[in-house]
Amino acid sequence: MSRDICVYLEFLTEGHKAQIRETARRTGFVPHFFTLDQFEEAKACLQHCKVLYAHSADLLRTAPASLRWYCCSFAGVDLYCKDPALFANPDCLLTNSNVYGVTIAEHVVMVTLMLLRRMPEYAVIMGQRSWSNQLPVRSIRDNEFTILGTGDIGRNVAERLRGMGAAKITGLSRSGRPHPAFDEVRPISDLDDVLPRTKILVMALPSTPDTIHILNRERIALLPADAYVINVGRGTALDQTALAEALNGGKLAGAALDVMDPEPLPKDDPLWDARNIILTPHVSGNMTLGYTCDENVARFCADLENYAAGRPLAGLVDRALGY
Amino acid sequence: MSRDICVYLEFLTEGHKAQIRETARRTGFVPHFFTLDQFEEAKACLQHCKVLYAHSADLLRTAPASLRWYCCSFAGVDLYCKDPALFANPDCLLTNSNVYGVTIAEHVVMVTLMLLRRMPEYAVIMGQRSWSNQLPVRSIRDNEFTILGTGDIGRNVAERLRGMGAAKITGLSRSGRPHPAFDEVRPISDLDDVLPRTKILVMALPSTPDTIHILNRERIALLPADAYVINVGRGTALDQTALAEALNGGKLAGAALDVMDPEPLPKDDPLWDARNIILTPHVSGNMTLGYTCDENVARFCADLENYAAGRPLAGLVDRALGY
Repeated sequence: MSRDICVYLEFLTEGHKAQIRETARRTGFVPHFFTLDQFEEAKACLQHCKVLYAHSADLLRTAPASLRWYCCSFAGVDLYCKDPALFANPDCLLTNSNVYGVTIAEHVVMVTLMLLRRMPEYAVIMGQRSWSNQLPVRSIRDNEFTILGTGDIGRNVAERLRGMGAAKITGLSRSGRPHPAFDEVRPISDLDDVLPRTKILVMALPSTPDTIHILNRERIALLPADAYVINVGRGTALDQTALAEALNGGKLAGAALDVMDPEPLPKDDPLWDARNIILTPHVSGNMTLGYTCDENVARFCADLENYAAGRPLAGLVDRALGY
Repeated sequence: MSRDICVYLEFLTEGHKAQIRETARRTGFVPHFFTLDQFEEAKACLQHCKVLYAHSADLLRTAPASLRWYCCSFAGVDLYCKDPALFANPDCLLTNSNVYGVTIAEHVVMVTLMLLRRMPEYAVIMGQRSWSNQLPVRSIRDNEFTILGTGDIGRNVAERLRGMGAAKITGLSRSGRPHPAFDEVRPISDLDDVLPRTKILVMALPSTPDTIHILNRERIALLPADAYVINVGRGTALDQTALAEALNGGKLAGAALDVMDPEPLPKDDPLWDARNIILTPHVSGNMTLGYTCDENVARFCADLENYAAGRPLAGLVDRALGY
């Protein structure tokens, strides 16, 4: 029986490959490495592979029914959950890589501080080479935060805000199950109760049918006028038109979006000109950070050991839930 | 004997005034409050006061020899240490308000992340409404920091970097005395040894004769080309011309200056156009943050209790050292 692994990734260093080879050797597997410009070679190899470590729907679509495990190097796997036709074998295991929490949390801390400390306005002042420094700033210390999503990202954000003296951190999740990173976790069905007392809303939700436009026009109106909205989950989670209108109308203090719908954002989208907005091109979780790449490989190797030993996979995705 | 206190400050709320009145009542003092547009009234009152709580060399200069304690609401008191003629009575006590560590540390975390995550470059990309997201980012986690100055600011910075997973935090101070916020504290005379292995240099030094241009051209050249320089202490602590040249020549990765010499920075200063620089108009420790104002008043009140009880003042400045 085949013990081949097809690895189709761009970010691997020689060290990462050596680490995968060594784990594979110990567990009786043989890895085959391809970069993104070797699609045809990867596809040919995949035909006799049991495991695929990649992030490519196009490649996955070509896999035979003998593929037993697809390890996606990304965290967001909605694409793979929505379309069962991608898997020739419906029992093929799907894992994702929840290793983006650290880098995304650093992004969230950065944009939170940029909003609280009025950096979009100071950028304009300094861009004119003028010198005015009396804009009232606010701080993470003693402030209250609401985090939509209590997974890897939400927890890493909460831990960092806590370290900087946040007064209260409320998490919202589907289950509402408590987690020590949060002062309280409430079910997402309580969202309408929580929004009116939210000062900074951090959105870190996967894309599922339940989360599409979860922050709709009515809910944006529930936020106080001095609230900030930060989205690092999926662009579809909020109503961008309503957000831009609230910002421009002074109904919201500011926003920072790293994810948008669609991406790239069209050049004539009103978001570009919205008041007090920080836009970044989906970089909060990008793969250029060594730590993220190292952890990605480490998690794959750990799950390869699990797989070989017949243990449950740590990164297993529930395709019905979408994460 | 007079038990009058002259308070000449702009930031006080009614709550702050009530707090000062109550502490004064308990300790047998009488406070008199003036805003900055009441200079003449404050000056007239000061003539029979024992205590002055303000930040004004002009007012201090008019004080009689009977003034026993000047509580400066700012942290940087170099101005008052340099010029003995400001004090009619050479034995007048001088205290400063080391309450800016929290807000300045939040500023430092913000600009550190902005530099590591390439925000000056992403601001240009997004300003053109284009969408490119492959600039390699770095993280606070697993990074090494050198902090020049281990006082209130340096410690607050170190604690926050630690909370975000910094690998190593080296402090440098005059004495080199260890402090738990740092992995190690070395005497500032070791600076030349520390700079070549510094990835992020945070400068939080008071202005004294010893710190003027402490980061001179030769020392800037000792930093690695991928290092970042952040200054929140005093603008005079670094050679701005050499810094701009190093940035433009690719000898340094970036810099964030909240303090400059002079301030405001002249419109034709080469710093404005330096590569990968973040300039802010001396806002990191500004008085618009409620927490900073509250702490300022709380420290004054605590030292008023100390003063009345004949105990040493917590904020006492050594005028020979300058802090």
